[in-house]
Amino acid sequence: MAKVLIVYASDYGSTKRMAAAVAQGAGSVEGVEAVVKAAEETMAEDMTSSDAIVFGSPAHMGSLDWRVKKLFDTVCSGLWMKSALNGKVGAVFTTGGGFGLSGGGAELTMLSMLANLVELGMIIVPLPKNTPGYELGGLHWGPNIRTMDNTAQPLPLTEESFESARNHGVHVGRLSLVLGKTAIFDH
Amino acid sequence: MAKVLIVYASDYGSTKRMAAAVAQGAGSVEGVEAVVKAAEETMAEDMTSSDAIVFGSPAHMGSLDWRVKKLFDTVCSGLWMKSALNGKVGAVFTTGGGFGLSGGGAELTMLSMLANLVELGMIIVPLPKNTPGYELGGLHWGPNIRTMDNTAQPLPLTEESFESARNHGVHVGRLSLVLGKTAIFDH
Amino acid sequence: MAKVLIVYASDYGSTKRMAAAVAQGAGSVEGVEAVVKAAEETMAEDMTSSDAIVFGSPAHMGSLDWRVKKLFDTVCSGLWMKSALNGKVGAVFTTGGGFGLSGGGAELTMLSMLANLVELGMIIVPLPKNTPGYELGGLHWGPNIRTMDNTAQPLPLTEESFESARNHGVHVGRLSLVLGKTAIFDH
Amino acid sequence: MAKVLIVYASDYGSTKRMAAAVAQGAGSVEGVEAVVKAAEETMAEDMTSSDAIVFGSPAHMGSLDWRVKKLFDTVCSGLWMKSALNGKVGAVFTTGGGFGLSGGGAELTMLSMLANLVELGMIIVPLPKNTPGYELGGLHWGPNIRTMDNTAQPLPLTEESFESARNHGVHVGRLSLVLGKTAIFDH
Repeated sequence: MAKVLIVYASDYGSTKRMAAAVAQGAGSVEGVEAVVKAAEETMAEDMTSSDAIVFGSPAHMGSLDWRVKKLFDTVCSGLWMKSALNGKVGAVFTTGGGFGLSGGGAELTMLSMLANLVELGMIIVPLPKNTPGYELGGLHWGPNIRTMDNTAQPLPLTEESFESARNHGVHVGRLSLVLGKTAIFDH
Repeated sequence: MAKVLIVYASDYGSTKRMAAAVAQGAGSVEGVEAVVKAAEETMAEDMTSSDAIVFGSPAHMGSLDWRVKKLFDTVCSGLWMKSALNGKVGAVFTTGGGFGLSGGGAELTMLSMLANLVELGMIIVPLPKNTPGYELGGLHWGPNIRTMDNTAQPLPLTEESFESARNHGVHVGRLSLVLGKTAIFDH
Repeated sequence: MAKVLIVYASDYGSTKRMAAAVAQGAGSVEGVEAVVKAAEETMAEDMTSSDAIVFGSPAHMGSLDWRVKKLFDTVCSGLWMKSALNGKVGAVFTTGGGFGLSGGGAELTMLSMLANLVELGMIIVPLPKNTPGYELGGLHWGPNIRTMDNTAQPLPLTEESFESARNHGVHVGRLSLVLGKTAIFDH
Repeated sequence: MAKVLIVYASDYGSTKRMAAAVAQGAGSVEGVEAVVKAAEETMAEDMTSSDAIVFGSPAHMGSLDWRVKKLFDTVCSGLWMKSALNGKVGAVFTTGGGFGLSGGGAELTMLSMLANLVELGMIIVPLPKNTPGYELGGLHWGPNIRTMDNTAQPLPLTEESFESARNHGVHVGRLSLVLGKTAIFDH
């Protein structure tokens, strides 16, 4: 058995729907339970009791949402002090406008969340390019779904767009089961 | 005349002292006024009325302080919508523990703040390596002062350590005067 | 008078065409001369004799082209030692596949080139979001033109796509003239 | 059995010695064979026949060595096309001057190498902060050993400095054994 926690912040609901897609994928792996929490409701115990944590954020002004960052600064930093999450599985996803047609800051947003996971000693799951759905919503660091078109108008989010997110969840679930309670970082 | 605004978040006072050093440098340039504000007290008008903005943050969990990020998401994003800060001068600085002896995430912290400045259309001032003080507190993106030693114990911050920060302020002040009201980005 | 140097590496010609578009924009500013060079032909003197340098690269495996990097390591590093380019103007652009619809690594590619410019003490020109052409080829750090569609097939590059690149050149040219021989970083 | 490949570029021998330390650690894990190759001698087969790949580079002008990048562009890109390395284990390390006391670009150098690993679909091993040796040579993304002091003079590299590198190798070796031929990314 493994538990995958998906933590997100969302303004208009797109990132929340992406979180649900990741959870759906993770939960579809036999032996994996998926739990979704908003960043502002996430407690230290939610993280320490999980085998994997996936952070999702919209790209805002070129990096992660402040509510996700507040969780990192006020809760994750305490877990870092104790090395409490070493060896768990981590992954990220983003949402963002397509304005500019070039990711709109999704990459640095993902790197900011990966920095937190890596500080916490977690093993990182990428998004391989042959993952179904990658061509519609993929960056190598994780899924990214565009929520606006190139005139900054809202895009409808089709179920199809969530395919890479669901598969990301599947990958995270599988790795969590394989790793189990192995002690990669013990000394 | 030019006005340089320095915005910071601080936990134990080190970043606040760095902000004061940047302000001291900027204000030492004839014709430049320097103003220091905590991120949580900074309003849109503080930014629109300035010719340059310098953001400072401790490195927390590998990226910028959540209070600085909240300012970006809730105030700067509105200014981005209006392209209200295009062509102003921007710069960054950080503080952080020396634990690990390798910057401790200062670089990605600076890049997260630079992303916001660049989204806002601001012209970026780096920290050249021959700036006095660089050897004690420099990264090419901006000054970084270490606040802990390699055993995670607090380091005393000497006045000497702030030299690169003061000079960064001087550079920002000078560029603000040179640019004045030129219209680099008009169309 | 100001001289803007555009340095690029190109595999199939897209980045070379982008370089030409940046040069066209820069050269359209009265008093600005634009010169384009392939990375492999660029000498130290080309850089020291310029007032601005713009680097362009395709995104390869998530960061900059190795030929551009070779120039940084073997030529720019010597100029860094001498602080020979302090205070000049710098900017970047990229090309890349749209596979994944999320920038495909354009952002980290731009940051790798910006790191070199910033190490060299150069003042950075961003790409403001209201720049004409941004909606078709923009990232805040600089223009990015997509050369493949979301099935990894080549996209035709229309002249229209180069608009953000031309305007980036205009901005760089204007700032070079304004800065002239001012001594922002002298001590 | 698992094979760990360590690939590096080195100017004065420090990065080569770091590579040897990572190999020593990896090879000390029962059932793990470690192989060290210079970037310029590394072939596609070296990578496809390995269970884990660790890339090491000095920080040059704020990002990775051009010889490492040439390997990524000319060899790894072909493996990316075929999704040939999906699910293998990846990690990074750097060396660099301590000039500035703030990492000197080690972080972006690591991220440039991680981008390649993640494009290739590899699972990433971080460097947890309680790894022995972290306090003398650690960044969360991987080990970084300083080779110059804060006046840009060469520092002697003591065997002690290599402790984080050796332990990084141990972690990579262990994870390679645990993952074995599991199919995390199959569809």
